[in-house]
Amino acid sequence: MPQPCAELSGRDAATPCPLCAQTDRLPVVWSGAWMRLVRADDAQHPAFYRVIWQAHRAEFSDLSALERSACMDAVVLVEQVVRGHLAPDKVNLATLGNVVPHLHWHVIARWHWDTHWPQPVWGPPQRAADLNRLEAVRSRIPDLDTGLRAKLQERFG
Amino acid sequence: MPQPCAELSGRDAATPCPLCAQTDRLPVVWSGAWMRLVRADDAQHPAFYRVIWQAHRAEFSDLSALERSACMDAVVLVEQVVRGHLAPDKVNLATLGNVVPHLHWHVIARWHWDTHWPQPVWGPPQRAADLNRLEAVRSRIPDLDTGLRAKLQERFG
Repeated sequence: MPQPCAELSGRDAATPCPLCAQTDRLPVVWSGAWMRLVRADDAQHPAFYRVIWQAHRAEFSDLSALERSACMDAVVLVEQVVRGHLAPDKVNLATLGNVVPHLHWHVIARWHWDTHWPQPVWGPPQRAADLNRLEAVRSRIPDLDTGLRAKLQERFG
Repeated sequence: MPQPCAELSGRDAATPCPLCAQTDRLPVVWSGAWMRLVRADDAQHPAFYRVIWQAHRAEFSDLSALERSACMDAVVLVEQVVRGHLAPDKVNLATLGNVVPHLHWHVIARWHWDTHWPQPVWGPPQRAADLNRLEAVRSRIPDLDTGLRAKLQERFG
């Protein structure tokens, strides 16, 4: 298992970075030497994953060219597997890190019927949840997690 | 000059894709064979750029491995030049495309004092604008645009 680094968040040295400390308590789908994949456990967006860089880096451009290439390979692989399993209407990719400045990429499957469509998932909801469709997606998450784990293991060991 | 493709948006065939039609009317900082860089002209976020893929593709994973590599090289180059000129507190990268499903990457310089910090720029503002600091950033945009154009031209021709 890769060891989380002991570095602290740059903004408040008294508060350990939650991604270094792994206190986010989200389901870890896969963990490798450079990255791990967690599922965000978002009630309205069941296929919401995060590719987290294991070492504490704030910006994507803090990585070396090789590291960036590996990181985006993982992000794209997650996008491809999510598309293969769920055929969402859109995939959103983002690395923001304003609250937790430790590099992590959001990979979020989106549908025209989802609560926030067409807005980003971070804004106010646009409509009530479609519980039947949501449940249909949720029921496929275990297989999707298994598929993601297998593909990431095959690619990154 | 690269020709915009004539494809239409997938969601409404009667409405041409605004990024293909180039009807967004935003300042074009640089334009190359595969990508162009525009500035979003956002009143609250002066250093908000978009790397737009010239051809109509919806998802990042619709690109080939070589195209993805070139695309992220451009996104990272923009991030690096923005950091070099403005030293923002954070850079946000995102490709959403829910409203306009034509691949474009947002590269957004963020500050602790900006109207939306620490939320994404797409949500409701968190505070009033700091006009002095905003103006200080704005005054450096022409030099930043020039720097971006030079670096992109050097890298991509």
